[in-house]
Parts: sequence; C-alpha cells; structure tokens
Amino acid sequence: MQSTEVEQTLEAIRGALDRDALDEAIKLLENLRAPDQAEVFNELELEDQTAILPRLNPDESADILEELEDEDAAEIAERLDTDTLSRIVDEMEPDEAADLLGDLSREQANEVLERLEDPEEVRPLMIHPDETAGGRMTTEFLALRRRMTAGEAIEALRNWAPDEELNYYLFVVDRDNILRGVVPLRKLITAPPTTPIQSLMSADVISVPAGTDQEEVARIMSRYSLLALPVVDETGHLLGMITHDDLVDVIEEEATEDIYRLAGVLDEERVFSPIRASVRRRLPWLYVNLMPAFLAAWVISQFKGTIERVAILAAFQAIVAGQGGNAGTQALTVMVRSLALGEVTLRDVWSTLLKEVLVGLINGLAVGAAVGLIAMILQGKPALGLIIGLAMVGNMIAAGFAGALVPVVLKRLKIDPALASGVIVTTVTDVTGFALFLGLSTIFIQLLL
Amino acid sequence: MQSTEVEQTLEAIRGALDRDALDEAIKLLENLRAPDQAEVFNELELEDQTAILPRLNPDESADILEELEDEDAAEIAERLDTDTLSRIVDEMEPDEAADLLGDLSREQANEVLERLEDPEEVRPLMIHPDETAGGRMTTEFLALRRRMTAGEAIEALRNWAPDEELNYYLFVVDRDNILRGVVPLRKLITAPPTTPIQSLMSADVISVPAGTDQEEVARIMSRYSLLALPVVDETGHLLGMITHDDLVDVIEEEATEDIYRLAGVLDEERVFSPIRASVRRRLPWLYVNLMPAFLAAWVISQFKGTIERVAILAAFQAIVAGQGGNAGTQALTVMVRSLALGEVTLRDVWSTLLKEVLVGLINGLAVGAAVGLIAMILQGKPALGLIIGLAMVGNMIAAGFAGALVPVVLKRLKIDPALASGVIVTTVTDVTGFALFLGLSTIFIQLLL
Repeated sequence: MQSTEVEQTLEAIRGALDRDALDEAIKLLENLRAPDQAEVFNELELEDQTAILPRLNPDESADILEELEDEDAAEIAERLDTDTLSRIVDEMEPDEAADLLGDLSREQANEVLERLEDPEEVRPLMIHPDETAGGRMTTEFLALRRRMTAGEAIEALRNWAPDEELNYYLFVVDRDNILRGVVPLRKLITAPPTTPIQSLMSADVISVPAGTDQEEVARIMSRYSLLALPVVDETGHLLGMITHDDLVDVIEEEATEDIYRLAGVLDEERVFSPIRASVRRRLPWLYVNLMPAFLAAWVISQFKGTIERVAILAAFQAIVAGQGGNAGTQALTVMVRSLALGEVTLRDVWSTLLKEVLVGLINGLAVGAAVGLIAMILQGKPALGLIIGLAMVGNMIAAGFAGALVPVVLKRLKIDPALASGVIVTTVTDVTGFALFLGLSTIFIQLLL
Repeated sequence: MQSTEVEQTLEAIRGALDRDALDEAIKLLENLRAPDQAEVFNELELEDQTAILPRLNPDESADILEELEDEDAAEIAERLDTDTLSRIVDEMEPDEAADLLGDLSREQANEVLERLEDPEEVRPLMIHPDETAGGRMTTEFLALRRRMTAGEAIEALRNWAPDEELNYYLFVVDRDNILRGVVPLRKLITAPPTTPIQSLMSADVISVPAGTDQEEVARIMSRYSLLALPVVDETGHLLGMITHDDLVDVIEEEATEDIYRLAGVLDEERVFSPIRASVRRRLPWLYVNLMPAFLAAWVISQFKGTIERVAILAAFQAIVAGQGGNAGTQALTVMVRSLALGEVTLRDVWSTLLKEVLVGLINGLAVGAAVGLIAMILQGKPALGLIIGLAMVGNMIAAGFAGALVPVVLKRLKIDPALASGVIVTTVTDVTGFALFLGLSTIFIQLLL
C-alpha cells in the first residue's frame, strides 16, 4: 500500500521535473513522510537533488540527508553553498552531522562548522570513528542532578523542548559530570512531584566507553532491552548517548555486512548500485578465490594418470568436493553467526570442534551411503561406491573440523570470520575431497577398471 | 567484562548444584540481571532447571522463560505443576505467554489459562500465528480518549502503573475502540495539564492488521523509527501494539534466518544445539543437493571420451564451475538481501537483470583472461587458455542472470528466496560451466592434444 503511493509520487515528481516545474515537484515531495521523502529523493538525478534541497525547509533537508547513504549525502552536500549547508547541518542530529562533515573536504567542513549555531555539539563527535559508540552517540541530551525533584525535572524538560528521538531515559550526573544513575521518563511522571531524583534513580546503570565497537553496543542494548545507552570517557564522564534508532540501524548494518561477506561481496552493495561499484566490490573476491581454485586443480592434476584410465572419476570427484563444500559452509555459518551474536566465546572451541566433527561423521555416513549406492548402481562397480562413500565421510569430517575451527582462529587473529572463513573452508574441502577420492581410486585402481 | 562475570557465576552455581546446595545456587542466580540469569539458567541441566524455577519469585521465573528459546521454555514448562506454572505465566508479557501456552499440550494450556488472573489478555493472542503482528503484539496497554485532558491522562497512567516496556506512545481510540490517533508520552507531559488530548494527538498514525508478517512489521517500524506500532483488526479496532523490544528481536531473527537459509541450514541453530538437532537441520539440505550434484556429474560424464584423451581438463573444469558458483552466490546474495530489506520490488526485475548480466560479463572477462593466461602458461597450449577464458565469460554471464532472476521468481512463487536460490543458481553455474568448457574442448580437441 505505502510503497505504491511512494512510487506514484515519484512518477509525478519526475514528470514535474521534466516540465521544469520545480515548485510543483517540491510541493509533491513535501507531502510525504520523512523516510518516504528520502526514498523518492534518492531516486532523482544529482542535479535535481542539488536544485531541490536548498528550497525545502532546512528541517526537512536535514531529515533527507540523514536517511541517505553516507556517500550519497556527501556527494550532494559538496555541491551546496556553505550558507545553505550550515542551515541544514544545524538541524541534523549531531552524530549524523559529524559523519557528514567527516566525509567532506577539510575546508568545507571547517567553513560549515564555523557557521553552526552550536559547533561544540558536533566537533567532539568528529574525533570518534563512525562505527564506534563515540561516533554513533548523540550529544543532545538533558542530564539531571540528584538533588532535583521530579517536578523540577519535568519543568526542565518542558523548557528544554527536546527533539523527537530523545528522553525516554534520563541520566543523572554529579557536579563533575560523572554518570551516577538513570531515571525512566515514565517513573519520573508517575512519581509525586516533590520526590527527589536521588530516590527515583537506579544507580545500576549500564554504560560503554566511547571507543566501543558499534556491534558490541548493539549487543548490549539488545541484551538488556535498552532504549538508550550512555557513552562515557575513561574516567566516567557522560559524553552522550546511543538511542534506539541507532540500535536498529546498527543491527541491520551488521547483519547485512555479515551476509555479504559470507558471500564474498566486499562492501555494502545495493541492487541499484552502479555496475562499476558492483564490479569493484565483487571482482577482488573472485581473484582471491583463484589461488585456492588452482590449488585444487593442481591436486586433481596429480592424478592425471588415474583419470586417463577411469575418466568417469572426473564426474564423481565433483560430487565429493561439492558436498564437502556445502557441509563446510553450513558449519562455518552457524559458527560465524553465533560469534556475531555473542553466543559463543573463544573458550568453547574444543566442545564445538568435537560436536562439528561428530555432525560431519554422521552426515558423511548418511550422504556417503546414498552417493556410494547410487554410484555403484549407475556404474555397476561396488568398489567405486565404496571409495566414494569413504571419501565423502572423510571430507565431511574435514568440513566440520574446518567449519568450526577456521572462524574461531580468524577471530583470534582479529580478521573478520564472515569475510575469510568461506574461502578457507571450501579450499580445505576441495583439496581433501579431491585428494581422498582420487587417492583411494589410484590405490585401488585395479578394482575400478 | 560482563561475560566473564556471568561465566564465573555459572561455575559457582554448577559447583553448588554438585554439592546439592540448591539454596546457594538460587541465591547466586538471583544476584544476576534478568538476561544474564536466562543465559546461566540455559546452561544448566533440565532437572536442575525444573528444581530451581519454582523456587524463584514468579516475576524472575517469567523473565527467564521469556528469554529462553521457545522450545526450551516449553520443555521446562511441561514439567512444572499447574499452580506454579500459572503463577509464572501471570507475570509474563501476554504475547510471550500465548507463545508458551501454544507450545504446550491443549490440556495443560487450558488448565493454566483457567487459573490466570486475566486469561482474556492472553487467550485472543493464541489465535494469531507466532510470526505475525497479532502473535507478536502485547495487549497490555492503556488507550486514551479524545476528550481527556493531558492532566487526566497522566493521572490515568499513574493509577495504571504500567509495565516497564510500554507507554512511550499513547494511542487514542473513540468510543467504539477504533484507533484515532497517537500522543507521544513526552508531548503529554510537557503540555499544560488542561490541554485536551484531541489537540495533542496526531491523527496520522501508522498501524498494521493483525495478520501482517513480522518481517513487514519490522520494516515499517524501522523505516518510520517507531517505538510502538498499533495492531488493528480489519475494521480498525485497536487490538494491541508491537513494542520496540519485539522489533529488535524480529530484526535479529529474520537476519539469522536469512543467513542460515542462504547456507542451507534449515532452521535456527546455535553452536550449542545438540548433535541430533544439527544433523536434522543440515542433512536434508545435503540430500536436496544430491540431485543437482548428480546432474552436474552426468553432464561431465557425457564428455568421458574427451577427458580420457585430455585428462588435465578434469582439473580445469573445477575452476570454471567453481568461479561461476562464487559469482552466482554474490549476485543472488545482493538480490536476496535487497528483497528482504524491501529495497527492491518485483517491478525492478528487468533493470536488475541487465545490470547483473553486465557485471557478469565484465567480471567474466577479467577473471577469464587471468585464468586463461595462467592455464596457457602452465600447459603451454594457447587453445586451452582461450577455451577456459571463453567458458569462464559465458559461465559468469549465466551466474549474473541466474543470480538476479532466481530469487525474484522464487519470491513471486511465494518460496523464500534465501532458502532455495543457492542450490538453483549453483546448479545453473555447474551445468553451464561443465557443458561450456568440456563442450568447447570436445569441438576443438585437435588443438588440445
């Protein structure tokens, strides 16, 4: 329902732009909700985008820039004059503003910063990397003091007129701005107005240092069902907070990143990414895979003499290696996802390894028996069936072993397991599969002729 | 930091249980936060779990059962007596309670329902499937009326003493319980107490019907940054709402499901799943893959005569098919994830298909040239290099075509693209790769001898 509406508006806006009716296009765009505005805006040509943005009110422009991919937002921002851009950046969430300025040239970023109403909200965020708690946090928040009353706190909130996204939790600091506690907004308003904050607050407040990786931030917020997570420096001073919006973004980003890396797509890509970008993100992976591919081919070539004599082995070798690859991918995926969700730690290595080897043995026996039987029937050679079955069992055990071990080793080496596990595990299963199957065939070749 | 603490407590509890010091174990458990309690509890033996749960206060037991996997929670609940279980279920969120009762025998569920304080909060939820808006929603909420004032609304909230997770948005209904608007809690408390709700509320409220799939629910909440989404029946009556907690759970569940299905793991699995469960979830996929594997083997077997004469082809065929599979997996993963995130619709098929074919052509030329060159140098036969290069280009184009098309066709057929795309696409690239490479080699065999 909603997406049809959006598509119709997009068509209407494109029509208006074709007729150079910029005012009409802007009017159509303004009638949409913020996320839909961003979607429609995203589909327009860059020149139309740079023509439209300065004409919207800065609040709407800010929403749009926040919703766009970082690179797209920067590309548009570069083309705006400093005055327009500063007015828009003023309306952005400080963390988003810092990200955008970080993507611009140093000169442009500084010019914009100088003209902001409150550059000190944004500047400190620019020193934190994008994907850390410090880079994600917002610095727009109201902190309470312990000696305030509930009524005074509500009065402060009323005067402060906070933004939409904030303030479902209120954090309490002492005079040195050290984080001391938390009061849920709901508790604040249902308490008698004279209650002191001290007695409403919970001192048991979870916080993270500014350098914490966003994946860890998401894990903590989701585990403890937090709507906001305060960010502190190394001595406990409250610097900002991560809000619920960011949590959802981080979870989706991290899941997408893992999915893509498991498939060898090296960076976030969309269906509508230009061809050039898609090639850039996928070709390196295909090149990386060449070395293992030639390694597996070299293993096969060692058995050239055997294949010359029993050419049908070339057909069955593909099944042994392929099924090993499938089993290895299953095992490594469970491991990579469990590591990502924090459900398994490096200490569980041995029990996992044992489990995966046993799963490999059982699946190997089940699949090996089936493949061996079919091969025997098709070729009329019991020895061929037995060799395929044995090779399959061996390869599935190797698959379980590599699938459980490789992600953990990569993680310990600080390499992303989602990125590199696949190529290593399938190399193991290719090499093992070909070597076992063709090796056994070479040993027992008299039975296969 | 936190996980070490949790692990230490787990060890201490296990120690206490070994010494039959149940009271000590319970005390240790009670000192943890709710999510940590669930994690530790999850690691204990079933008999210890059923001994401990009735001894905790029902509120804590409810939190633990909510955090456990559905199956595990049901296994424990089955072993509790009706009295204990009803007291615990009374403290659970209604949506979680309905899920749990749905996993029990009809008799046990009915006995528990009869003893609940308010069975009508739970019963209606049991008719909705788990993974829909109706199955996910909570029915514990306070709805406002338009003629109330802000002060009266706050007074109502105060008396209602709502649960932790609710009430950051307040929904407004008319006398027929039809959803009419929404008031953010923050707006309510910062308004003068005499302001009527009518003038505070926004009538532009997004809602979903009870049958909406949870994936769609998550998409809407995340797109519009909603902390709560009201659920209505077909005539607009307010039935309940989905809260922010559920959003995070759904996003993680859906991402995990997609990741696992892409790898051929048929159901959610954890590293600690028992071996039996892992085999059950992975073996069917390996069997499903046998048909395509034998199909590919059959294609190879058609060129037995060629392989007998030039056995080294058996080594290079693996590279052509394997790289095609890698490229196809990349293309289908981008497509599957974009479909899941709602970034591409079925209408974009043609432009995507064209794009993927072009990416395949470019990557095919780049990889084909490299592989062809290496093969030529290794074997000293220019014709071999040329044939490999050509087969590679052809197979990469097939990979792009299948990678873009298969997920869309499956989606239109209402089959989950994450589940079945991989096996179909790699079958296409295996068959195309072997047929092209071995076919070309057969035609030009004079140049390869």
